[in-house]
Amino acid sequence: MRTKLLSTALGSSLVLAALIGAPSLAEADGAAMLGFTADHAASETAAEARFDSGLSASDIDARLKLMSALPNQVGSPHDKENAEYTLAQFKAWGWDAHIEVFNVLYPTPKFESLTLEGDHPFTATLTEPPIPGDASSARQAGALPAYLAYAGEGDVTAPLVYVNYGMPADYAELARLGVDVKGKIVIVRYGAGWRGLKPKLAYEHGAIGCIIYSDPADDGYGMADPYPKGPARPERGLQRGSVLDMAIESGDPLTPGYGAVEGAPRIARADAKTILKIPAVPISWGDAQHFLEHIGGPQAPASWRGALPFTYHVGGDGPKVHLVVQSNWDEKPLYDVIAVMKGAREPDQWVIRGNHRDGWVFGAQDPLSGQSALMEEAKSLGALAKTGWRPARTIIYASWDGEEPGLLGSTEWAEAHDKELKSKAVVYVNSDTNDRGFLGAEASYSLESLLNQAAGAVTDPETGVDVRDRAIAAVEVRDLDPHAGPMVKAMARVARTEGVMPVGDMGSGSDYTPFVQHLGVASINIGFGGEGSSGGVYHSVYDTYEHYTRFGDPGMKYGVALAEVGGRLIMRAADADLDPYAYTPVAQTVGREVQELKTLLADTRNHAETQDALLKEDAFKLAADPTKSWSPPPHADAPPTIDFGPLDAATQRLAASAKAYDAAAAHPASDAHLEDVDALLQRSEQDLTDPAGLPNRPWYQNLIYAPGVLTGYGAKTLPGVREAIEGARWAEAQDYVARTAKALDALSDRLDKATRLLTQ
Amino acid sequence: MRTKLLSTALGSSLVLAALIGAPSLAEADGAAMLGFTADHAASETAAEARFDSGLSASDIDARLKLMSALPNQVGSPHDKENAEYTLAQFKAWGWDAHIEVFNVLYPTPKFESLTLEGDHPFTATLTEPPIPGDASSARQAGALPAYLAYAGEGDVTAPLVYVNYGMPADYAELARLGVDVKGKIVIVRYGAGWRGLKPKLAYEHGAIGCIIYSDPADDGYGMADPYPKGPARPERGLQRGSVLDMAIESGDPLTPGYGAVEGAPRIARADAKTILKIPAVPISWGDAQHFLEHIGGPQAPASWRGALPFTYHVGGDGPKVHLVVQSNWDEKPLYDVIAVMKGAREPDQWVIRGNHRDGWVFGAQDPLSGQSALMEEAKSLGALAKTGWRPARTIIYASWDGEEPGLLGSTEWAEAHDKELKSKAVVYVNSDTNDRGFLGAEASYSLESLLNQAAGAVTDPETGVDVRDRAIAAVEVRDLDPHAGPMVKAMARVARTEGVMPVGDMGSGSDYTPFVQHLGVASINIGFGGEGSSGGVYHSVYDTYEHYTRFGDPGMKYGVALAEVGGRLIMRAADADLDPYAYTPVAQTVGREVQELKTLLADTRNHAETQDALLKEDAFKLAADPTKSWSPPPHADAPPTIDFGPLDAATQRLAASAKAYDAAAAHPASDAHLEDVDALLQRSEQDLTDPAGLPNRPWYQNLIYAPGVLTGYGAKTLPGVREAIEGARWAEAQDYVARTAKALDALSDRLDKATRLLTQ
Repeated sequence: MRTKLLSTALGSSLVLAALIGAPSLAEADGAAMLGFTADHAASETAAEARFDSGLSASDIDARLKLMSALPNQVGSPHDKENAEYTLAQFKAWGWDAHIEVFNVLYPTPKFESLTLEGDHPFTATLTEPPIPGDASSARQAGALPAYLAYAGEGDVTAPLVYVNYGMPADYAELARLGVDVKGKIVIVRYGAGWRGLKPKLAYEHGAIGCIIYSDPADDGYGMADPYPKGPARPERGLQRGSVLDMAIESGDPLTPGYGAVEGAPRIARADAKTILKIPAVPISWGDAQHFLEHIGGPQAPASWRGALPFTYHVGGDGPKVHLVVQSNWDEKPLYDVIAVMKGAREPDQWVIRGNHRDGWVFGAQDPLSGQSALMEEAKSLGALAKTGWRPARTIIYASWDGEEPGLLGSTEWAEAHDKELKSKAVVYVNSDTNDRGFLGAEASYSLESLLNQAAGAVTDPETGVDVRDRAIAAVEVRDLDPHAGPMVKAMARVARTEGVMPVGDMGSGSDYTPFVQHLGVASINIGFGGEGSSGGVYHSVYDTYEHYTRFGDPGMKYGVALAEVGGRLIMRAADADLDPYAYTPVAQTVGREVQELKTLLADTRNHAETQDALLKEDAFKLAADPTKSWSPPPHADAPPTIDFGPLDAATQRLAASAKAYDAAAAHPASDAHLEDVDALLQRSEQDLTDPAGLPNRPWYQNLIYAPGVLTGYGAKTLPGVREAIEGARWAEAQDYVARTAKALDALSDRLDKATRLLTQ
Repeated sequence: MRTKLLSTALGSSLVLAALIGAPSLAEADGAAMLGFTADHAASETAAEARFDSGLSASDIDARLKLMSALPNQVGSPHDKENAEYTLAQFKAWGWDAHIEVFNVLYPTPKFESLTLEGDHPFTATLTEPPIPGDASSARQAGALPAYLAYAGEGDVTAPLVYVNYGMPADYAELARLGVDVKGKIVIVRYGAGWRGLKPKLAYEHGAIGCIIYSDPADDGYGMADPYPKGPARPERGLQRGSVLDMAIESGDPLTPGYGAVEGAPRIARADAKTILKIPAVPISWGDAQHFLEHIGGPQAPASWRGALPFTYHVGGDGPKVHLVVQSNWDEKPLYDVIAVMKGAREPDQWVIRGNHRDGWVFGAQDPLSGQSALMEEAKSLGALAKTGWRPARTIIYASWDGEEPGLLGSTEWAEAHDKELKSKAVVYVNSDTNDRGFLGAEASYSLESLLNQAAGAVTDPETGVDVRDRAIAAVEVRDLDPHAGPMVKAMARVARTEGVMPVGDMGSGSDYTPFVQHLGVASINIGFGGEGSSGGVYHSVYDTYEHYTRFGDPGMKYGVALAEVGGRLIMRAADADLDPYAYTPVAQTVGREVQELKTLLADTRNHAETQDALLKEDAFKLAADPTKSWSPPPHADAPPTIDFGPLDAATQRLAASAKAYDAAAAHPASDAHLEDVDALLQRSEQDLTDPAGLPNRPWYQNLIYAPGVLTGYGAKTLPGVREAIEGARWAEAQDYVARTAKALDALSDRLDKATRLLTQ
């Protein structure tokens, strides 16, 4: 099935091998395995089958149930118990395992209150009552209440302003409505951008407090029947979360760049750049409706309306709100559980697999659905090893702590081992939440071929086709919808023209960030979803075993599928005769992105010029209702010319170098230099980094993908240039054109060198 | 202001005149008036100034208050009183006025009930309680209750199915969800397509009853604060209306094609094609929420969700609903008030102005806002005439009865006078509802230049620019929004490239239909709106003087503006030295539409082929959640080639003929043939008609614009071809390519003849 589409091109050495014929490294029964000789591919396939047979849905289920039985946030007794349980399991499965402890600043709530004054007084409950039929939800002792980690403290009283999703465009709209948040408290709904940006942008616009609520339009009854009838967030469900400024850097805010071990250099809390300045609190829509219904002020713009049964207004001069947040600013221990299986041939090449273990409350879906599958992989690999199988490279399995508050466990570990990782890590494979449905992935472009091959070898439990084909079918069907957005269209185009599954760009929001974006370790993030609905209770008390087994992944079939994909990625990366990178996708994708930048600049210029013409003609005034408070958009300078020549030249060169390398890798002249090439290419993602990092956030060093400063989780590609254009910083854009071109040239240099070694 | 944009091209003889210089018909101080000599334009401008000075906002206000004081639907005592009042006013103002009576089938409710059975029983109130502060809303004696005119009768009991807006795409989606409406009662929300299509399509899909409700997302609290706090539809507000199948033909269902005068041929009610077959009733969201909340069945698709505070489901096997509708099928009299001012030079050329007078209840906005302004025009023209002014052509002012149930008054009058109208009518200018804001208009393309000039001569009361410039500014600003839809983009492009205000295509929904679409009388429809919010109580008890003067047009400034535009159109059409048609816009617009058809065909082919490829690959099955009832879309044949050659040739020829005529009209060789040309061109819109009419609806004869069979009000351009492509009737499409091309060629012939006369 789907062979017509998929046989055309994978943009990798696999296909070159298939086309040219008789390669020494890749030809196995028509399905060449990237980086493997034909014989080795056959034995690898057999090993994978044995790996699969060691996976048990019921073991995943039992583990998830055990680990999600009690609240397990950072510093909780059950988090430590889970760490010790995980350690014991790894050891029992034959791994060389240990716990690494880091001590990090982790604030917890001391006192919180939120009240509405005026004619309709109300005190927010800030709590989530137990739900009948969900026994877990009644075991709340020790759970965090409504809380946003790393928010500021304060005791503030002011009128409210509703700022929609609280993103930059919302503040621009608010300004045009004539409403200012200076000295006010904002109420903002979850969605459209990362949580942490909401109070940060509110603070930058002068607000003195921030309430974040879950509108039923976004994950409540507007999406599906609420729990317990259905999966969606119920009236009193609220979303905890971190508001650490992770777009600047992740990890312990007091040890930026260093592992938070004993004796590490620590800055003062007041100097920490990533701690928020104003108090903030998350609430349910059951609480929020009281604050929103009588907020007054102008009617909210159409796109700001949620699903509460009244007309949304913006507020600004309505009744006052009183918000108090006081926190304990203690250090807390993180317990990263690290399990090692040493490589037989290249022990100093590391293949790393990780998932976090800490939840906000019970964390059944987030993160234990992924964590439990990862442990199943470790169990099965351990069993394989007991039958004599040994990986060529060293495998490391990691159960991270403290992901929720700020990727703490992974970041501190990556920072503590930074030099070693830069010289040894071949790949980092991450997972987090997992649900029934379609394989979704983000990846370094050099790993797209590996990911496609591994996904093409795993059978979808519901349909019987492989999970890659199912993912491609899904995006193609979505693309047929006349309302399909540009991102779906772009992914479908790539699926059609290059025959590859949709792979996203690496932003942030899980533990791959310190690896791929800080250190330059090629990374993949995987997870199933799209049919399960456990995300409806994201970060609430109701993310329980009961909810997950009804709405997330009943029977844990997708837990097994995740383990099959994760295990394959790890085994292939660990066993391949040559590191399973392919670079043609890097050149293709970056080439497309450079074209996008040119379009972005042209669109920016066109918009600025059109808007200016309309401003000069007073068109905005004529188009506005004079009975409403309102102002035209501010003048925007049209961008100057930016010389994309260096990027054009670098991408052209990279296309040629990547093509030559991928061909050479499929047909090495001998196996004399394979380990030299491995050693060389293991740093190839690092070529894409710049020690100076991105503007105003030097910790982020990858020039190809980063979480957007103004998206938080969402990726920006070629971020140095793209964000400079979006922010109208033209000199910076030109600077990062040069820096990015230089990085691409460094990769071309490395590939040319590898090609020479392979053709000797 | 805005001269840079607007000085470029009006696509009319005006501009040709300005460019070529020294025309005999059009050059007056840089602002040439279409169809006028320079001297005559100056005196016309002076007459218009006198006309304006005769307009009084307070007279409009007093008249609206008087006429909306009591329910005034067809057959009500106050409708007749209003007719007699209107007649008396016309006469008092010096017009030769009379009432024409038609007797039409007009059903009224005898008994209605709607109840929900099961665990949550409920009986619909079907009433609208008085609202504090709105004295009119307490004067409901004699008002129609919740009622849909021309619905069927019946006493039916069945489970409910929610079908969203009840449009064809909704039924396709429902089929894919595995839910059938056969033998069920449907509940459908207002919006997205004309009311009458909803029960019609429900019937065609096998439903036995239909409930139409107003979702708060569409005109309730989801749009604005409900009345009385704001203008939007309150909890118990419901929308009456007609469900006569007006896409087939408008007017009395028993006298299709004939005026319903005494002795007219009448068909039996059972043979009437436009009367609905199943019972139907309109309800408020206050009633509807009880029916929708417990409907059961699959969750509704995302785009089907309204603003009620629960998850929308589709139903199908939930509790039963019992619906009873019984009607009186009496004949009722219509009172059209007709006022004539005879033309001095060409009395047999008629310039007609109309607005309906009947409302559903009080009808303050719909229709008395427009009716009251129209009467103000008649008052001021009467005053002008008393000072010695006389139009060159005959002016007819009409106050139509029975528009609401089915354009009855205008259609019967047009049918009764069809031969005379075909040989005499030069233009029909319609209005209906009017609100504060922007001038909106639909027009025959040959009248776009006249409309632009008239609008360019009227000052907007809020901004001081002319109403044309304000309309252009509004569409240009909307076009700057990154989410602007294709219709806004198309209108903005025309505004930019041709310098003309946005003019819509003529669909249906008001009294111009019998003129432009049945008889081929060139027509214009005008009305202000976009800032006033009186539409929130459309067809409800709350469309009152109190509501209108708070939210519609406080101070009646836009009532005056409407009279200024309407009066100018009538005066210029009546006084021009040469009928004020311009044909370059016809050629330009039809040329664009032919290109649209080609794109539509290509898109249809592309979609069918892509969908078929995905069907063959089983992609829809792979992309679907197997735990949900669901089926793939049905196979669609890819369209064959359609030969657009005849249309290409006809539009090319028309472009040349129109250009030549417009140039000749600006510089006639002499004034010897002006009346001959007038006589010739008066029938030019009729060239665009076909006596065979459109497929399956011969009453609709205009081949350039029609209400869509599947949109109801919304226009379809080149409808014979376009609807055939949309319906995959390929032979019909090819047939109407030829018919439409022939119509355009007939117009070219006529223009060539006129050009010869003008250049002799």
